[in-house]
Amino acid sequence: MTLASEVTQSRALLSDKIKAHIRGKAKPVGSLGRLEELAVQVGLIAGSTTPDLGDARIVVFAGDHGITAEGVTAYPSVVSREIAKFVLAGSAGVNVLARAAGVGVELVDAGLLEPLPPHDSLLERRIGPGTKNARREPAMSVEDCTAALDAGRILDARLGAENVGIVGYGEIGIGNTSAASLIAHALTGLDLKTLVGPGAGAPALGLDHKYEVLKETFARAAIAPSSEAGRTFEVLRQFGGFEIVMMAGAMTAAAAAGRVIVVDGFISTAGAIAAEALHPGTLDNCVFAHCSAEPGHAALLHHLRVKPLLELEMRLGEGTGAALAVPIIRAAELMLREMADLPGEHPV
Amino acid sequence: MTLASEVTQSRALLSDKIKAHIRGKAKPVGSLGRLEELAVQVGLIAGSTTPDLGDARIVVFAGDHGITAEGVTAYPSVVSREIAKFVLAGSAGVNVLARAAGVGVELVDAGLLEPLPPHDSLLERRIGPGTKNARREPAMSVEDCTAALDAGRILDARLGAENVGIVGYGEIGIGNTSAASLIAHALTGLDLKTLVGPGAGAPALGLDHKYEVLKETFARAAIAPSSEAGRTFEVLRQFGGFEIVMMAGAMTAAAAAGRVIVVDGFISTAGAIAAEALHPGTLDNCVFAHCSAEPGHAALLHHLRVKPLLELEMRLGEGTGAALAVPIIRAAELMLREMADLPGEHPV
Repeated sequence: MTLASEVTQSRALLSDKIKAHIRGKAKPVGSLGRLEELAVQVGLIAGSTTPDLGDARIVVFAGDHGITAEGVTAYPSVVSREIAKFVLAGSAGVNVLARAAGVGVELVDAGLLEPLPPHDSLLERRIGPGTKNARREPAMSVEDCTAALDAGRILDARLGAENVGIVGYGEIGIGNTSAASLIAHALTGLDLKTLVGPGAGAPALGLDHKYEVLKETFARAAIAPSSEAGRTFEVLRQFGGFEIVMMAGAMTAAAAAGRVIVVDGFISTAGAIAAEALHPGTLDNCVFAHCSAEPGHAALLHHLRVKPLLELEMRLGEGTGAALAVPIIRAAELMLREMADLPGEHPV
Repeated sequence: MTLASEVTQSRALLSDKIKAHIRGKAKPVGSLGRLEELAVQVGLIAGSTTPDLGDARIVVFAGDHGITAEGVTAYPSVVSREIAKFVLAGSAGVNVLARAAGVGVELVDAGLLEPLPPHDSLLERRIGPGTKNARREPAMSVEDCTAALDAGRILDARLGAENVGIVGYGEIGIGNTSAASLIAHALTGLDLKTLVGPGAGAPALGLDHKYEVLKETFARAAIAPSSEAGRTFEVLRQFGGFEIVMMAGAMTAAAAAGRVIVVDGFISTAGAIAAEALHPGTLDNCVFAHCSAEPGHAALLHHLRVKPLLELEMRLGEGTGAALAVPIIRAAELMLREMADLPGEHPV
């Protein structure tokens, strides 16, 4: 038997064991609905019928985008840093939602236009002062793209050292729905138009203008066929941004390390799609927190054949949806580990 | 101006103030979607643009039902007490889900067949050893129905003394989907068939048998027209059970005291409908946690024109759905109270 088929077989065995374990819980069979499916996923990720995931954390990657020069956003790039400052002050949307869920938040500066003042919750991993304008030239160099992926992987190792088993990824970056639309279009083949939406607010020049700019950007980049990993790298390099690339790197490492990855909205989902292309299997570790109101998000979730946990019509980003999903994931974990078993056998 | 119209006017003014407060938060307008609607409701309940709801708690009412003698359930009545014992041991479904949400749980014995041993988390408020068989006679006497409503109201006062501003109501009681179907049918006029489902599991004699028994029970009770409160009282008395009646009493008092009421599944929703009929305005304080897989629940939510926060196909009862909704309600509260405001005026 090959190693791959042995892994598949042991995964199927564990899945059966977890299902039998859930059937033996003190409740009518199936009565926890989708929480039971989530519990199977969580058990498989942790490799246990009684997983202990450790701490949860929301990691927010921030970066700026040169493509904002093309009038594709409602807000100027300087707003990214203002939002990041609210995150450090503990008063941004993600902070209050994470507080409600009992989860800590940290901010990674992956490449804002201007650096932030030092802060306990700030991880300074700046690749550059925002990306280049991807309509005119690649968003970043090969070296910078490699550095961003590496920085993401190294950040994940830090989570391991701090016993974080549930990590939710959020992002801040005026212009990053443009980057995410291009990445998702390139990697899923979904129609670009389906993937273009208002982001933080309708751009001053309108959605049609945004679509035209993105179409031109995609044509300019002229992504050549290549190996899947090579092509994904080129897609990330061409469209950016630093925060999405770093997040994708972090996701690949989190999956390899057996963490539960909580995917937030449209941009984080594009990041997860890139991570899967770089490191197949990453999606097995991804829990999709919510369906955002950004129209392309539903299309991506449908493409991935996943149903998110929440549908609250949120579209703030920052990891806000991921934060709200953490207690649901924790519930699945505790169901496996702490809920009473009925006496008797529950055959696999 | 009448008192009623003054209340309506001041409510509309506060609603406008809360909406303006939310518009001024550091985020794109409307970007927290349904969390913003929930925040308006929470602010109105608390009477503040920056509410402090205090602690949250799940209160689980347990009671047994004489109608189980008619073969309408998959499990015998003794199972109610077994589940209640798991709740006291901290290992029932509601305990683990509440733990995941950071919420405490207490159990009220409103009338199980047999008493439970004393326990710190047990509130012994037994009206009787289960209800009578409602197919043959009223589930309880006028005195017992009054006592159950009163006990619920008094339990609520205790929550006030303990600074609980968010209270989720759950229930345990083999046979209580039968009681809830009858109450909901009597108070909403929805077709009885729509409201009959499997509950904890398909009854041994089938769903058609359950429907026939409930139809006969409804006919036997011959609820006479009366004042709305008088008729509601008679409906509760005829169909029971002690746990639903006590919950309805607690809900009326919780609404009067300005608490956020988290309504769990089908049975709790029937309780909320009864509470609204007894004390109009109670529903203003109700947040509907989830849509359960019990088919009648969607019909009741549709009838009430409410959209629940979660749809995870759960049907365990006990308050499990309410527990998972608490962090979302807390998020709405903290958004109002702790999220950064943008500089400038945000006119009402």
